Amino acid sequence: MDFSIPGPFQQKLASCRTLLDEHVLPLEPRLFSEGYFKLQPALDKARDAVRVAGLYGPVFPPELGGAGLSLKELGLLSKVMGRSPLGHYVFGCQAPDAGNIEVLHEHGTDAQKEQYLAPLVRGDIRSCFCMTEPDNAGSNPTVLSTTADETDDGWVLNGHKWFSTAHDGSRFAIVMAVTEPEGPRHGRASMFIVPTDADGFEHVRNIPLFGHGGEGFFSHSEVKFHDVKVPKDALLGPRGAGFLIAQQRLGPGRIHHCMRWLGIAERALDLMIERAATRSLGDGVLADKQQVQMWIAESKAEIDAATWSVLAAADKVEREGFRAARVEISAIKYLVANIMLGVVDRAVQVQGARGLTDDTVLAFFYAHERGARIYDGPDEVHKLVVAKSLLKGARA
Amino acid sequence: MDFSIPGPFQQKLASCRTLLDEHVLPLEPRLFSEGYFKLQPALDKARDAVRVAGLYGPVFPPELGGAGLSLKELGLLSKVMGRSPLGHYVFGCQAPDAGNIEVLHEHGTDAQKEQYLAPLVRGDIRSCFCMTEPDNAGSNPTVLSTTADETDDGWVLNGHKWFSTAHDGSRFAIVMAVTEPEGPRHGRASMFIVPTDADGFEHVRNIPLFGHGGEGFFSHSEVKFHDVKVPKDALLGPRGAGFLIAQQRLGPGRIHHCMRWLGIAERALDLMIERAATRSLGDGVLADKQQVQMWIAESKAEIDAATWSVLAAADKVEREGFRAARVEISAIKYLVANIMLGVVDRAVQVQGARGLTDDTVLAFFYAHERGARIYDGPDEVHKLVVAKSLLKGARA
Amino acid sequence: MDFSIPGPFQQKLASCRTLLDEHVLPLEPRLFSEGYFKLQPALDKARDAVRVAGLYGPVFPPELGGAGLSLKELGLLSKVMGRSPLGHYVFGCQAPDAGNIEVLHEHGTDAQKEQYLAPLVRGDIRSCFCMTEPDNAGSNPTVLSTTADETDDGWVLNGHKWFSTAHDGSRFAIVMAVTEPEGPRHGRASMFIVPTDADGFEHVRNIPLFGHGGEGFFSHSEVKFHDVKVPKDALLGPRGAGFLIAQQRLGPGRIHHCMRWLGIAERALDLMIERAATRSLGDGVLADKQQVQMWIAESKAEIDAATWSVLAAADKVEREGFRAARVEISAIKYLVANIMLGVVDRAVQVQGARGLTDDTVLAFFYAHERGARIYDGPDEVHKLVVAKSLLKGARA
Amino acid sequence: MDFSIPGPFQQKLASCRTLLDEHVLPLEPRLFSEGYFKLQPALDKARDAVRVAGLYGPVFPPELGGAGLSLKELGLLSKVMGRSPLGHYVFGCQAPDAGNIEVLHEHGTDAQKEQYLAPLVRGDIRSCFCMTEPDNAGSNPTVLSTTADETDDGWVLNGHKWFSTAHDGSRFAIVMAVTEPEGPRHGRASMFIVPTDADGFEHVRNIPLFGHGGEGFFSHSEVKFHDVKVPKDALLGPRGAGFLIAQQRLGPGRIHHCMRWLGIAERALDLMIERAATRSLGDGVLADKQQVQMWIAESKAEIDAATWSVLAAADKVEREGFRAARVEISAIKYLVANIMLGVVDRAVQVQGARGLTDDTVLAFFYAHERGARIYDGPDEVHKLVVAKSLLKGARA
Repeated sequence: MDFSIPGPFQQKLASCRTLLDEHVLPLEPRLFSEGYFKLQPALDKARDAVRVAGLYGPVFPPELGGAGLSLKELGLLSKVMGRSPLGHYVFGCQAPDAGNIEVLHEHGTDAQKEQYLAPLVRGDIRSCFCMTEPDNAGSNPTVLSTTADETDDGWVLNGHKWFSTAHDGSRFAIVMAVTEPEGPRHGRASMFIVPTDADGFEHVRNIPLFGHGGEGFFSHSEVKFHDVKVPKDALLGPRGAGFLIAQQRLGPGRIHHCMRWLGIAERALDLMIERAATRSLGDGVLADKQQVQMWIAESKAEIDAATWSVLAAADKVEREGFRAARVEISAIKYLVANIMLGVVDRAVQVQGARGLTDDTVLAFFYAHERGARIYDGPDEVHKLVVAKSLLKGARA
Repeated sequence: MDFSIPGPFQQKLASCRTLLDEHVLPLEPRLFSEGYFKLQPALDKARDAVRVAGLYGPVFPPELGGAGLSLKELGLLSKVMGRSPLGHYVFGCQAPDAGNIEVLHEHGTDAQKEQYLAPLVRGDIRSCFCMTEPDNAGSNPTVLSTTADETDDGWVLNGHKWFSTAHDGSRFAIVMAVTEPEGPRHGRASMFIVPTDADGFEHVRNIPLFGHGGEGFFSHSEVKFHDVKVPKDALLGPRGAGFLIAQQRLGPGRIHHCMRWLGIAERALDLMIERAATRSLGDGVLADKQQVQMWIAESKAEIDAATWSVLAAADKVEREGFRAARVEISAIKYLVANIMLGVVDRAVQVQGARGLTDDTVLAFFYAHERGARIYDGPDEVHKLVVAKSLLKGARA
Repeated sequence: MDFSIPGPFQQKLASCRTLLDEHVLPLEPRLFSEGYFKLQPALDKARDAVRVAGLYGPVFPPELGGAGLSLKELGLLSKVMGRSPLGHYVFGCQAPDAGNIEVLHEHGTDAQKEQYLAPLVRGDIRSCFCMTEPDNAGSNPTVLSTTADETDDGWVLNGHKWFSTAHDGSRFAIVMAVTEPEGPRHGRASMFIVPTDADGFEHVRNIPLFGHGGEGFFSHSEVKFHDVKVPKDALLGPRGAGFLIAQQRLGPGRIHHCMRWLGIAERALDLMIERAATRSLGDGVLADKQQVQMWIAESKAEIDAATWSVLAAADKVEREGFRAARVEISAIKYLVANIMLGVVDRAVQVQGARGLTDDTVLAFFYAHERGARIYDGPDEVHKLVVAKSLLKGARA
Repeated sequence: MDFSIPGPFQQKLASCRTLLDEHVLPLEPRLFSEGYFKLQPALDKARDAVRVAGLYGPVFPPELGGAGLSLKELGLLSKVMGRSPLGHYVFGCQAPDAGNIEVLHEHGTDAQKEQYLAPLVRGDIRSCFCMTEPDNAGSNPTVLSTTADETDDGWVLNGHKWFSTAHDGSRFAIVMAVTEPEGPRHGRASMFIVPTDADGFEHVRNIPLFGHGGEGFFSHSEVKFHDVKVPKDALLGPRGAGFLIAQQRLGPGRIHHCMRWLGIAERALDLMIERAATRSLGDGVLADKQQVQMWIAESKAEIDAATWSVLAAADKVEREGFRAARVEISAIKYLVANIMLGVVDRAVQVQGARGLTDDTVLAFFYAHERGARIYDGPDEVHKLVVAKSLLKGARA
């Protein structure tokens, strides 16, 4: 048992942190005031700096230029990048593109790879993933209403999706649709590559969250498929394998998410500390207040414990595979999401009124990361997974 | 001791609720999608309906058409109106106008009343209140940097304020500025009426909160005073009485705020219940889940207890005055703010992803009412008031 | 609506408090070190002082010398008496005697009253109540295994009970037993008066709680009925009415319990304040620590809110009856129990190691009042009552 | 980075667990009903079984027969032994003997070792440690009132100590006393070996905790030193080194404590699961209730995260020493203590009334482990250590 991070990888983490601090954090205020599209050129420049440092796309498969890191190492990187809402994007690790790259790499045909994977890996285009539906509880992804009917020369898609993250401005979507309605529960859906400019692929709206719809990469869309026709080779992976591939995609995703949340928590803690240490109260600073000290200490202990727990889960995945680590992955999902939101809330309180403004990144985190307890399975669903597993042996 | 609400007042509350449900709630989605200015005509129409029902401006002084209600009764009304972010506005009870009306009524000259109070009471114009400063901790309002220097024919104001609620589009501001820099700590500031179109009165920005600055009544501005000249009779109330008048203004304000927050909590609970009862999970609805039942029950118990506690504080104010009820008023401030935010958070979780969207009012409450634990004195300041008072006798 | 306590009743509360402080609190250390039986003579003397002051047995029916107080007034008294584990006993309001007196008064025959009620009211004997059974979940009191079979000249009881509070040393028990096994769920059980020295009435043990079984009034027994024969007139109230009478008995009991818990919480808060104000840390006292201040303030706000909520529930009972106030009574049960335990826990922490010792009453409260969230229906059962009631209208 | 436990050590843990389940757990009910002294012969027999298995005293220095394990490994063992209040005792790892053995081994003279260390290691005698004083806040152990004055032929001790764990029945005490009152704050005290039967060494009482004083190993004593004379060679270690040695002693102690608490938490979780899975509610079992499922899942996630965090702290100690891991050790102290108490509380609730009785070990844990948040530095002191360290760099 060894909890130390080898020196060379510590250096990589430090480089990543320096790049983030110098090239990414300064862009945050502009994200809030100008929006994604105006910021894109600056983001591209930041990506260039990351590329020059050889740190772009560490999460890619090695054959595509990825860094060939272990899940634990990727997790540690994700924690650093997670400090900024722009971090993963600038380092080429942003969802849903990273997951789409993986799926295309593993299941795409050569033609699909050339047309969609290559420009995605280069960062020339963006993509999205259409799974969740407004009419079906997201907690059970095997229940889908969107259908793909086979015709002589292709497929016709019909359906209604929402929370298609980053759809706005993306070149294509990977879409989950039912192709075998009579199949077994986990074998009904298939995946399709659908260009966003296909006829009948309606962009209903960027769903307004906390007061506005966002734009581009920072938005979640509601979309509809009205007899959208795609050719035979739009099918991605085997027929009926949609759910299986999605599961594969989610596995490492949860580790990354948890570590990203811990990066958020750590950033919030840093902002708490910075504000506490500098905010004058006349007869001292906020940091002299014991309540603030308690919050700092509680946050630190929780973030550290959660970090070790996620790394241990990643370690188990590496040794025994995702199936064996199912309980651990569910456990970190709700553990980390709640800890992160708690730390962010304390950081807002320490900032005072400023914590509600876009003068810091905290208000963004406070609102837009509230979803952490909901998406990819709400707390309650993951708790059920853990409880059921522990109760299994005990029941008569 | 009697906790019953007399029948006639119950009817008034019911009427208020009906008006709210019929005329105000339907406007909420448009507030989020279109913004305040586009919505204003519809809000005016809703106000007309309230006027016809004789329920407009119940908080006004009776001489100005108010309903002459007790503080407890106004609290109960505030709880009903608080169910919608638009409620107080449509019923003519919105901060900061309601407080400004009170101050003008009590301290204004006849000329001031004619020019500013009359149109405010009619709802023809809006006003704002400039007290908080970015460079001074809001928790101690006696420390101000904005100054008003007397000249031969008037005053010259210089300073920097923020969180001037509803400044955007308002006709005039009541401004706190230091006129007696050498006076005792609570006697340094005076109040001034300053038209928002005065030369040198700069509207820096609507402070972006959670991603956007809002507009009109739904915004909080940063403003600057650059040698703003106002005549002698811009002074509102006696010289050096600014802090005293502000305190007077805050007293009933805290009762109203607490009851408004309880209206928010009750609305959130209703949305929790409604979603739970109707959201299908395939094999039942969300309401069948014990976790959801526990949240509903905890929310109910907390809201009721907090409501009684606020009413009891109001009762003490009525019997013994604000000074005597100082501890009670501080206690309800943090008690209610935390309960409200807890209930809203549970309601978001029960809604699932929809709870993050503007499809319900919950996301607005989640973000924009987070300030309840911060403004008008953060939790920690009010807890200190209570603790100090209890500890006073016990110390050696 | 009026939240003030009339002057004369305030004086009664003050007298009760003075008696408690002078005659009851000094006995607490001896309860912990010597036990109930050795303490009994001193308790009897304290009762005499209470009798002299005309404050003994305020909860008795007026015909039996009770004070004829309203439920709210009895609640306020209960809060004062609840400050000490000995309070209710010394004032003649202790469970289960108080409830038994009520049942005997309402349902007893003249003979039963003469033999059992009279000495109980005088305080010459004690009694107990045997309902809960180890083999049946206490959350559903309609499921009972203890039986009473009718014979020619009486009844024969068989069964197994536990948590028969104060059985040790009591003269008789009121026992719930099934007499109509085929009857409707709420009509199967009847109540019987059974002398504790009856043949076959086995006292198995005083159940050890947190390390010891206690004794006398301060114990909870496990008992068995082995063919216990009682005469015909041992039946108390109508056949099959056991559950109904028990419900009647529980109604006001929950109000009393809640107010007693709030007395405990208030005592704990007082001990927190006293320790904080006097415990030297070298460079000041504990009360200078902000964390301690926050705990004091949070406790105060919670206790006050809960007190008002219980009084409001009592008020509703007085106006509309127990049935109408069912939701309110369930809500205060879990609200108050949790608040009380939270305050006690904070008080222990402020005391430090001393809080774990019997040098204060806190350790007793910490351990022996943990049951507040369990007995008379655990939190979860009462939350279900509240949730179901709120959800009723909302379901399709 | 590697989170796996090597196979051979996994087997050792499993053997330890088997011994605990077979030889220790069955003795628990007798501890509660009969007390320590009556149980001692059975405990000795259980120790024999442990010795036969070669698992006795793993924490001893290797020269004294210890297992030569790493701090992490000892921690994992401590978690297993911690499942029972009797575990550490039966495996020869009980505080304060284990710490005293270490101190005697490192600082004792040959004579001291022969007289005190040897029988202690054999388990023939017990010892205690007298540091805490009732008149001085335990949070600052450098402030002591007990003195040792040097005379021609030895030392004379005077003072008042309490919470001397396991003093009752122990052969000797290691006592902290001031020998250099004018020395620097951390250099005033020295350690002395004092036989418990020395003249003037008064055993005032076993301090009653939660209703009784316990006995023998399961007690905490208040003691007084009235001119207790000891010879020159009663001095243990260098003059003035008392505080330093005590600190050394506490370092690994905190890791062991935290892991012991996690053993308690895991046992409580097991009891929660077992009760949930078997307690019938008529229409199913407790485990079907979602609230119970949530508690199980929350407990699991917290215990795992805390375990990893303690192991990581131990790992850092192994690599960089205690000084470097100071913040981590403080952080796990409050993190784990609070998690443990939370899990125990949930387990009590799931048990229902039975959870308050000595029918399970939970009531013992609930009461007697409440001290975890207090002894060895209360939560608040350790949080301060963490906060100060984090704030150090941030302050101007």
